[in-house]
Amino acid sequence: MVTARAVDEAVADRATVDLLGVLAYGELSAFDRLAEDARQAPTLAGRAALSAMAAAEIGHFRLLEEHLKGLGVSVEDAMRPFVAQIDAYHASTAPRSWLESLVKAYLGDGLAADFYREIAGWLPGPTGELVQQVLADTGHSAFAEREVRAACEASRQVHDRLALWGRRLLGEAVTQAQHIVAERDELAEFIVTGSGDGIAALLKRLQHNHAKRMAKLGLN
Amino acid sequence: MVTARAVDEAVADRATVDLLGVLAYGELSAFDRLAEDARQAPTLAGRAALSAMAAAEIGHFRLLEEHLKGLGVSVEDAMRPFVAQIDAYHASTAPRSWLESLVKAYLGDGLAADFYREIAGWLPGPTGELVQQVLADTGHSAFAEREVRAACEASRQVHDRLALWGRRLLGEAVTQAQHIVAERDELAEFIVTGSGDGIAALLKRLQHNHAKRMAKLGLN
Repeated sequence: MVTARAVDEAVADRATVDLLGVLAYGELSAFDRLAEDARQAPTLAGRAALSAMAAAEIGHFRLLEEHLKGLGVSVEDAMRPFVAQIDAYHASTAPRSWLESLVKAYLGDGLAADFYREIAGWLPGPTGELVQQVLADTGHSAFAEREVRAACEASRQVHDRLALWGRRLLGEAVTQAQHIVAERDELAEFIVTGSGDGIAALLKRLQHNHAKRMAKLGLN
Repeated sequence: MVTARAVDEAVADRATVDLLGVLAYGELSAFDRLAEDARQAPTLAGRAALSAMAAAEIGHFRLLEEHLKGLGVSVEDAMRPFVAQIDAYHASTAPRSWLESLVKAYLGDGLAADFYREIAGWLPGPTGELVQQVLADTGHSAFAEREVRAACEASRQVHDRLALWGRRLLGEAVTQAQHIVAERDELAEFIVTGSGDGIAALLKRLQHNHAKRMAKLGLN
């Protein structure tokens, strides 16, 4: 007989694998896009800075891969259901300039960190610790902050365009996240249960932090 | 009065900065090309493997950057003289297939490691140690070995084409290296002195190891 408790655990296990799969493909695709954007850098320093942000994503990816292996799941299998939506996010937010690349890298990094922080508490022991470990490895984005601030201070027009861009990035991310959640019942249930006060409140917190990061870039 | 000893030291210092600059831009450009090739991977596993090789290059780049900073030189300044030649190498060896990407990644990684190993002994204490540190971080290329071997075993035609490709990669690398050395007197002098038995003997050792790596890929 399958008990209610066993069903709950099975749901949580599938949701954990889903969550790690989303994060892993998020890291792998962020690596890919950052590396592509790095190529457009106007200076060697900028190229090195964005390349370093890209490389950090792979560090996180490998932690997630290792952890999934411990759960008996290959990272490829865990990622596969999320490739289309995450690719769609990147296709709809392809930067058209170096400054747009920097804003996307900075805000994307921050949003990912917020999301890791939110879920760290919901996950069972070792998985929660893994997420903390990923979070500890930040601080690659001072370069983006400096460059974007300077560009915004130099031109009101640049500021306005980038502020619009920053808001659109969050909008597109939320849209694709909603598609993902709509297709994965266990994941949706897990997020609702985990977040405690519901998905709307979770989104509100992410929006709040996004706005704070926009301000740090001078985009307020 | 400038003594002969002081001149020697100045030459060695400039050559050390040159050497670190070549290596740094080698890492940064390898990152860039590997990341681009990773995008063409036929599987998520392949994409992850090549992305991880790319990320490792950035780890090395950052060590070199840090070390140059300690010598009072920005990594951008150290790299700048070598951008054109290294870009020319990559432009002349752009892979046209996934297997060519893997062969280039594997052989390039190995060649770089050989070169690091050669120069480690010539460099003053901390710089020599840095190079050892970079060398210790290898072992990202088992995937390439496995994939290329399997493809070569499955098709004689693939084997023959890739064997030609592998030989051409070394040829192009040697050509561009000769251009670099021809333009940098201190570097040339440093390599001649450091290698002990001359540049021809150094090249012979690199060729020998390249051939051993070709064999490991099944390309003999």
